Amino acid sequence: MERTIGLLGGGQLGQMLCEASNPLGIKVIILDAENSPAKQVNAKTPHLNGSFVDAEKIRELARQADILTVEIEHVDTHVLEEVAEKGVEVTENDGSKRTKKVEVQPSWKTLRTIQDKYLQKSHFTQNGVATVVSRDADGDLREVGEELGYPFMLKARKDAYDGRGNFPVKSPADIKEALEVLKDRSLYAEKWANFKLELAVVVVKTEDEASQDSKGTIAYPAVETIHEDSVCKLVYLPPRGVTIKQQKEAQDLARKAVGSLWGKGVFGVELFLMENGELIVNEIAPRPHNSGHYTIEACPTMSQYKSQLLSILGIMPSFPNNTIPAMVPSAIMLNILGGSSKSSHNKLMSEAVQISTAALHMYGKDSKPGRKIGHITVVAASPSLGESLVEPLINLANNMRAERRGISPAESKSSPFRSLSQGPLIAITMGSDSDLPVLKPGLALLETLSIPYHVTITSAHRTPARMMDFASSAVASGFKVIIAAAGGAAHLPGMIAACTPLPVIGVPVKGSTLDGMDSLLSIVQMPRGVPVATVAINNSINAALLAARILGATDPAIQEKLVEFAKNSEEEVCGKAGKLENIGFEKYLVK
Amino acid sequence: MERTIGLLGGGQLGQMLCEASNPLGIKVIILDAENSPAKQVNAKTPHLNGSFVDAEKIRELARQADILTVEIEHVDTHVLEEVAEKGVEVTENDGSKRTKKVEVQPSWKTLRTIQDKYLQKSHFTQNGVATVVSRDADGDLREVGEELGYPFMLKARKDAYDGRGNFPVKSPADIKEALEVLKDRSLYAEKWANFKLELAVVVVKTEDEASQDSKGTIAYPAVETIHEDSVCKLVYLPPRGVTIKQQKEAQDLARKAVGSLWGKGVFGVELFLMENGELIVNEIAPRPHNSGHYTIEACPTMSQYKSQLLSILGIMPSFPNNTIPAMVPSAIMLNILGGSSKSSHNKLMSEAVQISTAALHMYGKDSKPGRKIGHITVVAASPSLGESLVEPLINLANNMRAERRGISPAESKSSPFRSLSQGPLIAITMGSDSDLPVLKPGLALLETLSIPYHVTITSAHRTPARMMDFASSAVASGFKVIIAAAGGAAHLPGMIAACTPLPVIGVPVKGSTLDGMDSLLSIVQMPRGVPVATVAINNSINAALLAARILGATDPAIQEKLVEFAKNSEEEVCGKAGKLENIGFEKYLVK
Repeated sequence: MERTIGLLGGGQLGQMLCEASNPLGIKVIILDAENSPAKQVNAKTPHLNGSFVDAEKIRELARQADILTVEIEHVDTHVLEEVAEKGVEVTENDGSKRTKKVEVQPSWKTLRTIQDKYLQKSHFTQNGVATVVSRDADGDLREVGEELGYPFMLKARKDAYDGRGNFPVKSPADIKEALEVLKDRSLYAEKWANFKLELAVVVVKTEDEASQDSKGTIAYPAVETIHEDSVCKLVYLPPRGVTIKQQKEAQDLARKAVGSLWGKGVFGVELFLMENGELIVNEIAPRPHNSGHYTIEACPTMSQYKSQLLSILGIMPSFPNNTIPAMVPSAIMLNILGGSSKSSHNKLMSEAVQISTAALHMYGKDSKPGRKIGHITVVAASPSLGESLVEPLINLANNMRAERRGISPAESKSSPFRSLSQGPLIAITMGSDSDLPVLKPGLALLETLSIPYHVTITSAHRTPARMMDFASSAVASGFKVIIAAAGGAAHLPGMIAACTPLPVIGVPVKGSTLDGMDSLLSIVQMPRGVPVATVAINNSINAALLAARILGATDPAIQEKLVEFAKNSEEEVCGKAGKLENIGFEKYLVK
Repeated sequence: MERTIGLLGGGQLGQMLCEASNPLGIKVIILDAENSPAKQVNAKTPHLNGSFVDAEKIRELARQADILTVEIEHVDTHVLEEVAEKGVEVTENDGSKRTKKVEVQPSWKTLRTIQDKYLQKSHFTQNGVATVVSRDADGDLREVGEELGYPFMLKARKDAYDGRGNFPVKSPADIKEALEVLKDRSLYAEKWANFKLELAVVVVKTEDEASQDSKGTIAYPAVETIHEDSVCKLVYLPPRGVTIKQQKEAQDLARKAVGSLWGKGVFGVELFLMENGELIVNEIAPRPHNSGHYTIEACPTMSQYKSQLLSILGIMPSFPNNTIPAMVPSAIMLNILGGSSKSSHNKLMSEAVQISTAALHMYGKDSKPGRKIGHITVVAASPSLGESLVEPLINLANNMRAERRGISPAESKSSPFRSLSQGPLIAITMGSDSDLPVLKPGLALLETLSIPYHVTITSAHRTPARMMDFASSAVASGFKVIIAAAGGAAHLPGMIAACTPLPVIGVPVKGSTLDGMDSLLSIVQMPRGVPVATVAINNSINAALLAARILGATDPAIQEKLVEFAKNSEEEVCGKAGKLENIGFEKYLVK
């Protein structure tokens, strides 16, 4: 931790990096314009004024630092290669000169590969990382169009970001215009990606070498990103309507992609979840990423910025399953883009400060229309609570956008927000589909309470392997409670309980004989060591309520719903009592 | 948020205040020596170099600011009174002069009252806030000794902190020496406080007026503080072995004490939990407090520093029940005190960085023996997990202390750590003490699993009011699961479930007739709407395991224990199987 870091670029990413380095006692020297955002929060050491693309300034930074890193990938990788491989000349205290090699993290090779988007995508394809299909655009674009199909995307290989440098080619007739718009730039073509939604995963790389097996990579949670006007607008943790399995797959793919690159550091991996459920890498940023700002509050002891510092210094701790978990159930990040006037964002700032679980981050930049000048992260005990808290802020941001773009607020609201949902917390299974009618009222109640669930069939006697597989992977699937219904020699709840540490609720289903007593005793009379929480015969409502109580013990939003439910039940009975007292039992019975 | 704050003092508290003000876009001008910790992280504006006790410098700061606040209470309150009541002269751009009154928060009256510890304690007594009994020490100390009893504490009224300025008077014979040691200081006497442990509560005050009913006050959680060598060493959230009720009482008392003071801001309230269970205020700091550092990570969107900013600016959001909850189940803070050499703390720093749920805060101060140069906050999914993570760090700190004080590490370890415990998460109740033998194996299992529980008797039929009171206050008491055992017409589990949203586990107890079937059906056949998780007749082990599974669904440490438990059970049965196969069934049966 005594090595000095030289940082190319002092914008908001550098600023948040310094907010992480200051308390760790890590020295960071910044190369950027005077008073840039990062310099505003780091007066621990003198900085360099100048441009992070100025070769001589980069050499000067290298002289003062032990290790160089970037907050932006559009840097001169040839100077970085020079200081890393040949070194820079430094003058010792006694006046003698020597050459010092300076570590560059991540490697200049990685930066060079990523700068050129065609090279980046070819690299992933060569390394077995699913990505957008891309083609050279030096030849006849009609041939490319025939191969990729229309529409396809014509893109600048370098310096393209936030939608600039892209041209959608809808038909051969567009080719001429596309080439005109993107003239003087080196181009490539991308197959059109029909994605369902966009995900992002921040990945930490702790090894210098590249590998094909994700070696030395650690993933933050997968999040959903919402773009508007080609700029990131919102980030949702957890991603809405994405299964735990898909989230895990996104983390794995992101780790594989980052593992194939050289050097250490933090990477922002953008992915597409395609309509067919397939995951592919869109592109990678070799630095902390807008989609990872939420980690400051959601991982309060291990933000992406702290990870960048520790990984490039080679002192990153290890994590079980190579994943860094979030400490809060939900986090939503909203970017603050400059409005039509310098003060347009003031209202959004004051509203954010009034939300006790929101963190406001202003970058100390002058406001210009559409410029990223800050962000807000709302954390919450549940995704639905988070969404209700962030909603008024999104409305304010939409109004700012409407004003900025000269459209009506209603038009601005039509941006692509999807319906709200989250990964299921309750798994419901039954021995046979004939048990489904019994479970129906319980399922309906979970819908009423807006608690997401997953329902399936696993017979202990007819699909024993499937049942065990289901039970033993339940924790990894993100479930917190299992409800199992069965009748007769009802072994399913107990067998599932034997294969998972989760609480299992058993619903005895009444069969054609014995009035359900066979099912009840098969479920409730478990041996010591393997408990099943048994409810009344056929009473799936109580199973659902018990599952909700279990979740509610640690989720205040769910507990609140249960209190409400009990109040409603009470009122219902009181209403009936009033009616009975009012009209008398005889009339009551004929009603 | 456009008002400029002038801060008297730029130490670590001011530094962490600036770490909170920077992202909020709040301008803070610091008065302190050049390169003081706060200035190192705030280059957004020019600061004032000088002493925060220099009257002219304070006036200069007042000219540049809209509101003054402090990070230390040992300031010149007369200058503060002057700038607040009379104002300072400022020169306008056109050269004209005018007088500007500058808000001081908290009020200079509060600072003046708190500076003088005798005045402070008298103030609390007058306002009905339980505090240490104090007496004037101007007269004959023998009379004071007779009234307060021996030992009593002779204390300097002002500028006493970290144990300096205190003298314990054990008998009348000590009086002469005490007066000699504390000569030239204004003194008072305190009754000896036989406290069980020390608690602290950070309180935010949002109103200017003083009141006797806690008006406009908001409390952070109560924490336990451990002092060593008269300096805060450790802070535990939640406080160990303190009931939820006592924690709430501590918050209420702290709010009442702070409510009696003038002005807005954040206050650190130190309390004693006496041997007899009584809570009294020890003393108050009118600023963020060492005991509240944990809030940076535990309340990542509302640290005590953000609260100080928002409260003095008059834009503090409101909180349900006037309390700010922690977002993590456990946080433990360890101060880093300078060791015998400048580099003694390096090992502690590197170890802290290797703990992924630990946040290291170095203040950028030169290390001197015993000086507070940083702190570490460990957050965890459970108190026991947090304690196991922090233990190696405490050992390193103990070794540093031993080296610093020239004692053996073993001696340093003898500091007053109490046995580890936490508030119980499981409540266990029964209809009659005759059910206790049935519950015994379950209770023993919870002991084995080190899961704290609370056990009591509440009969549905003989103590219906007590039973309802117990059930309806269970959430507020911090319980997450209830186990209820009953026999015969076993109404207890269902009645409890009717009065709480928590999951309730029912244990049917076998009576002298019907083999327990009466109990089982009374418990399991609950009507729709009120579920009871029923386990097998007399099977308290499974009730305990089910409770553990419920807690484990969201507490990885407990889930881990259950996986271990299942593995042990499996191994036990496998061992028996091996033996049976080995020696044959005949020998097995005679063994």
